[in-house]
Amino acid sequence: MNAEGVKGFFASRESLDMEQYLVLDYYLECVGDIETALAHFCSEQSTAQWKRVGVDEDFRPVHAAKVIDYEVTEELEQLSYPVKHSETGKIHACRVTIAHPHCNFGPKIPNLLTAVCGEGTYFTPGVPVVKLMDIHFPDTYLADFEGPKFGIDGLRDILNAHGRPIFFGVVKPNIGLSPEEFSEIAYQSWLGGLDIAKDDEMLADVTWSSIEERAGYLGKARRKAEAETGEPKIYLANITDEVDSLIEKHDVAVRNGANALLINALPVGLSAVRMLSNYTQVPLIGHFPFIASFSRMEKYGIHSKVMTKLQRLAGLDVVIMPGFGDRMMTPEEEVIENVLECTKPMGRIKPCLPVPGGSDSALTLETVYNKVGNVDFGFVPGRGVFGHPMGPKAGAKSIRQAWEAIEQGISIETYAETHPELQAMVDQSALKKQD
Amino acid sequence: MNAEGVKGFFASRESLDMEQYLVLDYYLECVGDIETALAHFCSEQSTAQWKRVGVDEDFRPVHAAKVIDYEVTEELEQLSYPVKHSETGKIHACRVTIAHPHCNFGPKIPNLLTAVCGEGTYFTPGVPVVKLMDIHFPDTYLADFEGPKFGIDGLRDILNAHGRPIFFGVVKPNIGLSPEEFSEIAYQSWLGGLDIAKDDEMLADVTWSSIEERAGYLGKARRKAEAETGEPKIYLANITDEVDSLIEKHDVAVRNGANALLINALPVGLSAVRMLSNYTQVPLIGHFPFIASFSRMEKYGIHSKVMTKLQRLAGLDVVIMPGFGDRMMTPEEEVIENVLECTKPMGRIKPCLPVPGGSDSALTLETVYNKVGNVDFGFVPGRGVFGHPMGPKAGAKSIRQAWEAIEQGISIETYAETHPELQAMVDQSALKKQD
Repeated sequence: MNAEGVKGFFASRESLDMEQYLVLDYYLECVGDIETALAHFCSEQSTAQWKRVGVDEDFRPVHAAKVIDYEVTEELEQLSYPVKHSETGKIHACRVTIAHPHCNFGPKIPNLLTAVCGEGTYFTPGVPVVKLMDIHFPDTYLADFEGPKFGIDGLRDILNAHGRPIFFGVVKPNIGLSPEEFSEIAYQSWLGGLDIAKDDEMLADVTWSSIEERAGYLGKARRKAEAETGEPKIYLANITDEVDSLIEKHDVAVRNGANALLINALPVGLSAVRMLSNYTQVPLIGHFPFIASFSRMEKYGIHSKVMTKLQRLAGLDVVIMPGFGDRMMTPEEEVIENVLECTKPMGRIKPCLPVPGGSDSALTLETVYNKVGNVDFGFVPGRGVFGHPMGPKAGAKSIRQAWEAIEQGISIETYAETHPELQAMVDQSALKKQD
Repeated sequence: MNAEGVKGFFASRESLDMEQYLVLDYYLECVGDIETALAHFCSEQSTAQWKRVGVDEDFRPVHAAKVIDYEVTEELEQLSYPVKHSETGKIHACRVTIAHPHCNFGPKIPNLLTAVCGEGTYFTPGVPVVKLMDIHFPDTYLADFEGPKFGIDGLRDILNAHGRPIFFGVVKPNIGLSPEEFSEIAYQSWLGGLDIAKDDEMLADVTWSSIEERAGYLGKARRKAEAETGEPKIYLANITDEVDSLIEKHDVAVRNGANALLINALPVGLSAVRMLSNYTQVPLIGHFPFIASFSRMEKYGIHSKVMTKLQRLAGLDVVIMPGFGDRMMTPEEEVIENVLECTKPMGRIKPCLPVPGGSDSALTLETVYNKVGNVDFGFVPGRGVFGHPMGPKAGAKSIRQAWEAIEQGISIETYAETHPELQAMVDQSALKKQD
């Protein structure tokens, strides 16, 4: 590309009607001339060949993605990851901000993904290492999305649970229980104090536990638990399935007793989530399989917060995400960014509830609460409730006791002295440390 | 996990009914005791907690993923990529083969993805670096999939094109042309010899070029080109869109004149591809946006051939994939593996046509042909046809001339001497080399 060609892919923010553009933040490693590489990067993700042969025209003013800001952060000895590529020259790490005209694809998730993390993005000559770090939507673009139907407030109203975290639990054993057995331990966990007993993300509609039968048993158990505790409860059924049966699974699950639905967002696709969200009668909760495959590398792929944002845009009321601690292999700053994305102002799109999860129990609640910094989060133990040495009811109780201790400003250890279910968790942890 | 726990996640292939299992090949970097890490890896992607508290049961024989083979390939000083994790100890690189019981999820793509590249896979204590390298399906599992409706033979029959590659061309400029302008240059390219003129993967149904209007113009132009050349032609319309409008877009595009459809497989989701494939009346061609985000790292993510296999399983008749040469940043061996996956025996699933693409022209055809090793591939230039200095008709002619030269065993340079369209490409390349 010559100098004139390159110029057509740069613009000042002030010169553009920014309501017509998404703003994309990328980390790039550029080989050779930096501005040429950046121009190629914009070209490949938008106009490519911007005129016909022999016709005096230029599609760049309307259709080109344009660099509106960039910063060279470092000259590198070599690429951060070995990637075969075509160019030669010095290597520079850059932060680049691109304005991408949304008329190129419209308010459609698959077409948006194609533009911002498609062939153009990952196959630009001179840019072998790329991470999409963030994406910003103008209000005119957001206006065409529906977002969460219930959101945090809607979920709290259903549960009549205000001023505290929402207590989820993943029924375990997650695979192998009959629907009746499964319902019995979910029932125990509701009695102990869980708001929401949920299917594991790996358990869906299978031959040995159909969603119809499971929702039936769980619906009955839920109503019994509601009557006994006087509190609303939720059975969260995983309807992840082929996209052409999601609506049917929604209906079967809800008709039989589920009152919220779990969907594995990336495995079904964000667009299928949007379809389901437009249809659903109950809150939709998203789980995070597949996302780590493209978000874990520090300098390659797609930042997880882009996915949190897109899941909210697609209409999830709750986003389950990898939580705090080494166990979940996610830097603390990244977890916090993901939590914050759920409630940041986003045009007309409602906030969704963040659920930073992974190997939680009564003993991790305080840490999660302190790191999140407020009560607008979901807490989702699995074995911390259903592997509790005194059983699932006690497991759920231990979670609520931990919250009582936090609310009253008493240490978990002190509160445990008068609460045997919590004490059992403290003892179990002490035993493990001795191992 | 104690020694007894670990044992439950290992088995010999001979002891299992392998028709009940998928076989998964992973590259793993394990921290600490290797067999413990591998057992955790299997546990996390299947049973996790395999019994209820206080009940004498074990879900592992039926539901556990099980290591059936592994090999430690190397002791590493450090992880290949810096990843925060919870374990300590020596680090070993391993190749592991796992048998995963498909009764855990059934013949459903989203649930399959959840099991084999979901939370369990990427969040196992002691296994911070993971790449899913391959996946093998038993015939009983494949029997529940439909696969491609047309396949290579079906596509060849439609085009009456046998014994040679299929010649695609991506109409460029890809973004900005009106449907009428777009149809004019597609028409020229058909006259020149293309079999298939296609929408770019970034051009779908947009305000300034609706799929209805574009398919209308292109359908007319296609029929005219068919009448003039006496050859069947295909207009390949990109109907990538929100999943709940894919069926409608299919109908609009086909009714108006498209006779094959392009879909961006990962952006809509593989399950949406399967839905469309079950419905389609015309061949379905898949494009590869998004896949590089999780397949480019040598030792992390998901190998691209897994995606080729899944795209074929989902029913694509043609799979477009990153092709040969440094420009497409994919090791040659990996491109060849992807090409081969399209036609390998796969139960009842038909072969699909591989299209290894990227910056192709008349001058790259011979290399691609030699590397593929036979005529069962598609060739897909963009600017190589539509940026040809003499225009798109000449661009298409240059491709066919290159194939004539190859068939006749004449060098491109020699053949070009009597074929001005091919000569123009040779000259353009010489000029670029002087730059």
